[in-house]
Amino acid sequence: MTQPSLQQLEQHDAFIHRHIGPDTKQVVAMLETLRVASLDELIGKTVPEAIRNTDALDLADAVNEEEALAELKDIAARNRIYRTFIGMGYHDTITPNVILRNVLENPGWYTAYTPYQPEIAQGRLEGLLNFQQMIMDLTGMQLANASMLDEGTAAAEAMAMCKRQAKRNKSNVYFVDRDCHPQTIAIVQTRAEHFGFEVVVGDMETDIPAELFGALLQYPGSTGRVRDLTDIIARVHEASGLVTVAADLMSLVALKAPGAMGADVVVGCNQRFGIPMGYGGPHAGFFAFREAYKRSAPGRIIGVSVDSKGKRALRMAMQTREQHIRREKANSNICTSQVLLAVISAFYGIYHGPEGLKTIAARIQRLTDILASALQREGFNLTHDSWFDTLTVITGAKREEIYQRALASEINLRKVGEDALGVSLSETATLQDVSDLIDAFIGTGHSLDLDTLDSEIASKGSLGVPASLQRDTEFMTHPVFNSYHSETEMLRYLKSLEAKDIALNHSMIPLGSCTMKLNATAEMIPVTWPEFGKLHPFAPADQAQGYGEIFRQLQQMLAACTGYDAVSLQPNAGSQGEYAGLVAIKKYFEAKGEVQRDICLIPASAHGTNPASAMMVSMKVVVVACDDKGNVDSEDLKAKIEEHGDRIAALMVTYPSTHGVFEEGIREVCDLVHQAGGQVYIDGANMNALIGVAAPGRFGGDVSHLNLHKTFCIPHGGGGPGMGPIAVGEHLKPYLAGHPVIEVPETHVENGTISAAPWGSASILPISWMYIRMMGKQGMKRATEIAILNANYVAKKLSEHYTLLYTGSNGFVAHECLVDLRPLKESSGITEEDIAKRLMDFGFHAPTMSFPVAGTLMIEPTESESLQELDRFIEAMATIRREVEAVASGKYTAEDNPLHNAPHTLEDVMTDDWTHSYSRDVAGRPAAWLKAHKVWPAANRIDNVYGDRNLICSCPPIESYTE
Amino acid sequence: MTQPSLQQLEQHDAFIHRHIGPDTKQVVAMLETLRVASLDELIGKTVPEAIRNTDALDLADAVNEEEALAELKDIAARNRIYRTFIGMGYHDTITPNVILRNVLENPGWYTAYTPYQPEIAQGRLEGLLNFQQMIMDLTGMQLANASMLDEGTAAAEAMAMCKRQAKRNKSNVYFVDRDCHPQTIAIVQTRAEHFGFEVVVGDMETDIPAELFGALLQYPGSTGRVRDLTDIIARVHEASGLVTVAADLMSLVALKAPGAMGADVVVGCNQRFGIPMGYGGPHAGFFAFREAYKRSAPGRIIGVSVDSKGKRALRMAMQTREQHIRREKANSNICTSQVLLAVISAFYGIYHGPEGLKTIAARIQRLTDILASALQREGFNLTHDSWFDTLTVITGAKREEIYQRALASEINLRKVGEDALGVSLSETATLQDVSDLIDAFIGTGHSLDLDTLDSEIASKGSLGVPASLQRDTEFMTHPVFNSYHSETEMLRYLKSLEAKDIALNHSMIPLGSCTMKLNATAEMIPVTWPEFGKLHPFAPADQAQGYGEIFRQLQQMLAACTGYDAVSLQPNAGSQGEYAGLVAIKKYFEAKGEVQRDICLIPASAHGTNPASAMMVSMKVVVVACDDKGNVDSEDLKAKIEEHGDRIAALMVTYPSTHGVFEEGIREVCDLVHQAGGQVYIDGANMNALIGVAAPGRFGGDVSHLNLHKTFCIPHGGGGPGMGPIAVGEHLKPYLAGHPVIEVPETHVENGTISAAPWGSASILPISWMYIRMMGKQGMKRATEIAILNANYVAKKLSEHYTLLYTGSNGFVAHECLVDLRPLKESSGITEEDIAKRLMDFGFHAPTMSFPVAGTLMIEPTESESLQELDRFIEAMATIRREVEAVASGKYTAEDNPLHNAPHTLEDVMTDDWTHSYSRDVAGRPAAWLKAHKVWPAANRIDNVYGDRNLICSCPPIESYTE
Repeated sequence: MTQPSLQQLEQHDAFIHRHIGPDTKQVVAMLETLRVASLDELIGKTVPEAIRNTDALDLADAVNEEEALAELKDIAARNRIYRTFIGMGYHDTITPNVILRNVLENPGWYTAYTPYQPEIAQGRLEGLLNFQQMIMDLTGMQLANASMLDEGTAAAEAMAMCKRQAKRNKSNVYFVDRDCHPQTIAIVQTRAEHFGFEVVVGDMETDIPAELFGALLQYPGSTGRVRDLTDIIARVHEASGLVTVAADLMSLVALKAPGAMGADVVVGCNQRFGIPMGYGGPHAGFFAFREAYKRSAPGRIIGVSVDSKGKRALRMAMQTREQHIRREKANSNICTSQVLLAVISAFYGIYHGPEGLKTIAARIQRLTDILASALQREGFNLTHDSWFDTLTVITGAKREEIYQRALASEINLRKVGEDALGVSLSETATLQDVSDLIDAFIGTGHSLDLDTLDSEIASKGSLGVPASLQRDTEFMTHPVFNSYHSETEMLRYLKSLEAKDIALNHSMIPLGSCTMKLNATAEMIPVTWPEFGKLHPFAPADQAQGYGEIFRQLQQMLAACTGYDAVSLQPNAGSQGEYAGLVAIKKYFEAKGEVQRDICLIPASAHGTNPASAMMVSMKVVVVACDDKGNVDSEDLKAKIEEHGDRIAALMVTYPSTHGVFEEGIREVCDLVHQAGGQVYIDGANMNALIGVAAPGRFGGDVSHLNLHKTFCIPHGGGGPGMGPIAVGEHLKPYLAGHPVIEVPETHVENGTISAAPWGSASILPISWMYIRMMGKQGMKRATEIAILNANYVAKKLSEHYTLLYTGSNGFVAHECLVDLRPLKESSGITEEDIAKRLMDFGFHAPTMSFPVAGTLMIEPTESESLQELDRFIEAMATIRREVEAVASGKYTAEDNPLHNAPHTLEDVMTDDWTHSYSRDVAGRPAAWLKAHKVWPAANRIDNVYGDRNLICSCPPIESYTE
Repeated sequence: MTQPSLQQLEQHDAFIHRHIGPDTKQVVAMLETLRVASLDELIGKTVPEAIRNTDALDLADAVNEEEALAELKDIAARNRIYRTFIGMGYHDTITPNVILRNVLENPGWYTAYTPYQPEIAQGRLEGLLNFQQMIMDLTGMQLANASMLDEGTAAAEAMAMCKRQAKRNKSNVYFVDRDCHPQTIAIVQTRAEHFGFEVVVGDMETDIPAELFGALLQYPGSTGRVRDLTDIIARVHEASGLVTVAADLMSLVALKAPGAMGADVVVGCNQRFGIPMGYGGPHAGFFAFREAYKRSAPGRIIGVSVDSKGKRALRMAMQTREQHIRREKANSNICTSQVLLAVISAFYGIYHGPEGLKTIAARIQRLTDILASALQREGFNLTHDSWFDTLTVITGAKREEIYQRALASEINLRKVGEDALGVSLSETATLQDVSDLIDAFIGTGHSLDLDTLDSEIASKGSLGVPASLQRDTEFMTHPVFNSYHSETEMLRYLKSLEAKDIALNHSMIPLGSCTMKLNATAEMIPVTWPEFGKLHPFAPADQAQGYGEIFRQLQQMLAACTGYDAVSLQPNAGSQGEYAGLVAIKKYFEAKGEVQRDICLIPASAHGTNPASAMMVSMKVVVVACDDKGNVDSEDLKAKIEEHGDRIAALMVTYPSTHGVFEEGIREVCDLVHQAGGQVYIDGANMNALIGVAAPGRFGGDVSHLNLHKTFCIPHGGGGPGMGPIAVGEHLKPYLAGHPVIEVPETHVENGTISAAPWGSASILPISWMYIRMMGKQGMKRATEIAILNANYVAKKLSEHYTLLYTGSNGFVAHECLVDLRPLKESSGITEEDIAKRLMDFGFHAPTMSFPVAGTLMIEPTESESLQELDRFIEAMATIRREVEAVASGKYTAEDNPLHNAPHTLEDVMTDDWTHSYSRDVAGRPAAWLKAHKVWPAANRIDNVYGDRNLICSCPPIESYTE
């Protein structure tokens, strides 16, 4: 009997079958349910002929996990890890191993979704509250949000907020001290340009304009100076401007807090609190501010509220501020925050505690003092007579010689101006490093006795920080920062928080447009390789050749997947991608001399981020109506084009539509906009329905952003990090944003700067590289097909119980489906929220609620869910439907039914006086599988309004934890 | 103000404070509770003056986590990873990444204890049941145990069992086919020597003796031959002997099962099912057997039973067989099994499923067929005309040339006999490897078309396996092996099992003598470095220089910690250490001509493993009485010495005693034995009370085994792996066991062989190295002091509620304490088991129950537990005491009280008809902290007797899972 060939026995495509949930048999069964003969037929009936791809993706064949890891390891080996003293906001750091393994490398933390359903997210919400408390304490501010994308964008957001807050101040001028980090200045300038603000960069002591709405100062300065900012801040205040201080978190441990100097906003980055540099990210920017600005502040804020039983519970506060609600009136287009990184840095703070942090900071200071003193003795002058960890050394003509000598010792320094070198020390620096640095500067082995130098300095206290600027206030006094210092205690605290949350390691998270697919271990393993983690984003390019190769390959892969011609990897979130895309469009029109184009057409069904992004580039949003199927109303589109003519800059449209349907007329829509001279921005949120079956770059898109954390497997991290590169057509390629410090190939800094790091969150790009490499051309297409199959299967099965909204012309949906709950609400009073919370009792995270249509649930199962998991979800939804019926029929009252009371906690089902008309089992274990395993909601339904009315965003007193 | 010096700011000893639970303030408070002024005073009052160390440990100063990891990484880099085709029972393999990260690198799995408390261990018990099922299916046997230490010791255990089973067979002869792995033969010979059996090694076709009690055959043979063993087995059966087949697990996927050939026992190793080679271990040996032998089989067996509510539940079956119960009448001294590794290999089986395994095996076969065919075409002869994955190639005079040529290409081959080379292929082998191997053999680039060769072979089916030996039966048909093939499903299955178990990441596991201390992440990280994982144990020594360095350093460290002169790292469990120590003593006396010394004195209080080990070396156990304080009764000792005179070989004594006390008279006891010419074996179980304060090698011990999984931080892995090296005095050093394949420095193979691999479970030795390196001389001593402090604190606090047994002369205990529950049982009928199970309701794993004294709990908190955790435990025990009182006073009835009904499951507290006289909260959340986090017992109290009477050790039908 003939056996398979070796080729057939090789399992190079093994990963495809690990990534995709349904196996071959299940696929057949599901196709039967849908009454189609093959996947091909299904796709043929789903994806419009006009846009359907027939040729294979221009990707390599799949390789298996080991092959891909070996290939990536070879590429990674081309990164060279030098000792790096560049500073500029990035510092080598030590991730405590217990946090590395149990948080950063743990799917229980990294696969969770944004905590929109707080009852099953209390663990990471507590982590974020700790982060806010730590930031408030260190900055000396009243409030802090739960993270921004990076320091540069945080500073830009602060500028925008200062403008909003300084209402009576009519000035359009924003002052930026020249000793801010250059990437921060560039981002602020880009933002200002598109908001229409004027930025003055100058010396804060001499150049502050008489009229201004705000100012940005760096503390300590980018070149190291530690200066009391009180008088500068007072001066800006006198001009009715507000002051943002961009501060270094570690230095705040030792220095007077900016809040104590009068700062209105304090921004910065948490990177050096245990987050690998990762060639630029992901890290978490922080944003601390006066309480008065709470409604105006950007980003997510975690607050304390109560649940329906009156117990303390956490949730995202004041969501009505956010872009998805306020749309073009939003404060910011910011959407993703950096939950995983914010949480890790808070754990770093908890692990070390205030005393541990003081020791770390004091050690950094001492090493810097020793270095400063030694260099001075060796005849060097420093540009400043104060410092925390950063020195700028005047080298004159010897600069290049010293710089090269350091490089030869595998040491990276910063070049400052024309005749100086910068040195920044971090917690990983050693006395040996200091000694080697001295040698590099003087060009020979020094003969200083550094121990004696140390004693001399110790007797003086501090050389770099004036006594008046030394912190004399306590911080991080809350018990959470003072209880978990042994590894055992820390481990158990981490585990107890993890145990409260539902993540993908427990059950499906079927969020419409959020594409919660498998984040495979093989994709995640490289993230914590030191070859990727320990590289400074401004290290010389020849040390980052491995990254360079990954960027090139990933850009090609993403272009192949989308049909575009070029890709910019800089935007580090979807919102940044939208912004970057619109900036490119603006630059394109500027170059063509069509600066009058200032209108952005946005369909009524668009996600709120689209209009918020348009606002960020000062485009006027004109809403295009949708027809009753959720499609763009082409007549209305024509009318709007007619009306606005050559003022039309762009149409932003999501495809497949936010209603989960492949609109037949997408080509026509694109053509209409192009005929009017406009550009088409295709929002990549739903790209998971497209790869391999249709390419936006070919059916009419000029630019798209790609949420790598959706379609390309970067995990959601419990609410970030994400990545939002943009793909563009050839004509937009000259308008991609650049970077002021590091040259990014094929981009131009004149087009602006989007993110603090040249390639955004570089260290998580290997995740997407691994995914595409392991899936290959066949797998990428298959993923799309199964995503569509899974969605249609769920839709078909749910249609036996619920009304479904919107299908394509053949009755099929795309990769998600929309369940209309409004009829049920009418008949029973049961709301979509009741159903979402009730799903928690079944162990499920709710689908997207009330978007894009109020009163609906949007379900996207993704290709990674198996048939058995889909069936469990369907069973839960069917059971819920019967419960709704029981309310409608009066079997349950409106006040006492399992839906209205959902979610049920352990507390509930363990009460001795159970007064409900249904059993405890119906409450807490309404399906058989829950007897084997269930994550219990840690809170009853949480009262958002109460928390917003009684805003508390700091850690509550310890007693309340044990209430 | 003078600041601390840099030296003081450096945190080289940071790890000490991470490892040790109580911080400085807590230590002060605890000392106050004990009314002693300092740790020094406490140790002075606890450790007898006569044995107390005054000089510092001969260890280096502590280094911190990063420093130690960097140092170890440098050492590890000296291991060189070649492509290895040596075979001999070890093969490169791929650990599926999802299993690697979520099991092998997850403290939720690796920090768990042996499942003695099955209600909180159902997760890993299910994992072990899956392992047994997989082994039964692949071997074709009726039963399998839940793992042995390695293939060699499994074969030796099989020999012993065959002797026990073949009762009517009076022969003392055991036949071993010469084509068994040499390390297996050596272990069997060593065991046989000490049991008094005669081993005949020969060719199974010609040399089987007429009279024999059993035979060991390898399948496929060590040199590769695949032969039907049916006729050989029949021949042994005719002589009333039993046959053990040592089989290769991967080949069983493709080959007829040994069970189908009549084998009585099938042993082997699970290594190539996803466990890194790790330079020899740890892996799990397997042991499958006929149902008739169930009471005679060694090792742990997992079985299905029911709980008090009649629900299916798992637990260790027939524990009365085990060494701790049967003592010198035990079947074996085996104690630890290899739970973590057994579970991982079962997950490997589940992940691939039978179809996936078939593809892997078929691919290995094909590559081997191609290689065989190519070598034959190139003119080489093979020693066998059948094979699965192993070829033995006759090379004649060219052998060394070929061997060296392969080495030059970084390829390791096996030398067989004088004129042949062995090649074994694994799942990691590629066609490129095959091509390179051909080149190495022929000495030039070959010109064969391997693809064509492949087609030719495929058309024939198989070259190496005769049709009659191809497996034609299904295996692993249970749903568990056919449901979790996508990574998402696999991940969730792993998580759902993990969630059922209590491990150290949840709460204290205060097991007497088992020393469940922190297994720090920094210690665990190196275990999965490829530099340690991918090395074959029989690779040339110059490729393993990193390991060599670690062994040398660790031997020095362990000698320094114990006061002995030499250390053998070969024993891969405590039981093996005891055996190795007694073998060394026997060899020592043989050399001295004192062969009549055959008596082993063992105090009545000894752990059952001691007498079981003595039985393994045919020593006669003479029990020495203990006084009413649990100390060795020196009068009785003298009497026994008097009585047995020069027949006394050894005294085995645990120190501090199993009663948790530093016996004052230990020096005198040792002296008495020495005066009688005997040797003193000090059991290292309680070494955690000694390091830095007293050294057994100095106060009278001649040999000790060290449980690295207790005192030296190797995690318990849920019931293994452990490591049991022995430390000996100078005079015993010449008698340390060696290895037949690889020369182990300073050992001699004439002394026998203990474990299959030369250095036992080499890949986990870096854990202990890291621990000692990071603690340094100060930290190691401090750990002991705090372990003693913690135990005395718990003892003092519990003495307010309970009677404590045994304290030293000053009223202090050592590192553990014994709570006497017998008075309570008398007054209330509440048993120690009731209390142990009730502790689960508080989220705690029970202490050791009824050892060394029936009706007691032995509590060892270890130094890693913080004061707050100790206080939680004490609160739980105090609450329980009040509950006992309530039973005694009649407030609760004997049948209905929270103790008798413990543990309570979620099922219990969610019932709608609660009929108990206490509340649900009292049942399930009897302490405040449980509201924040609790692992619920997955079963009610499990009925051991039912399961033993109705033995089921295979996976039950799937329906029973959802009952």
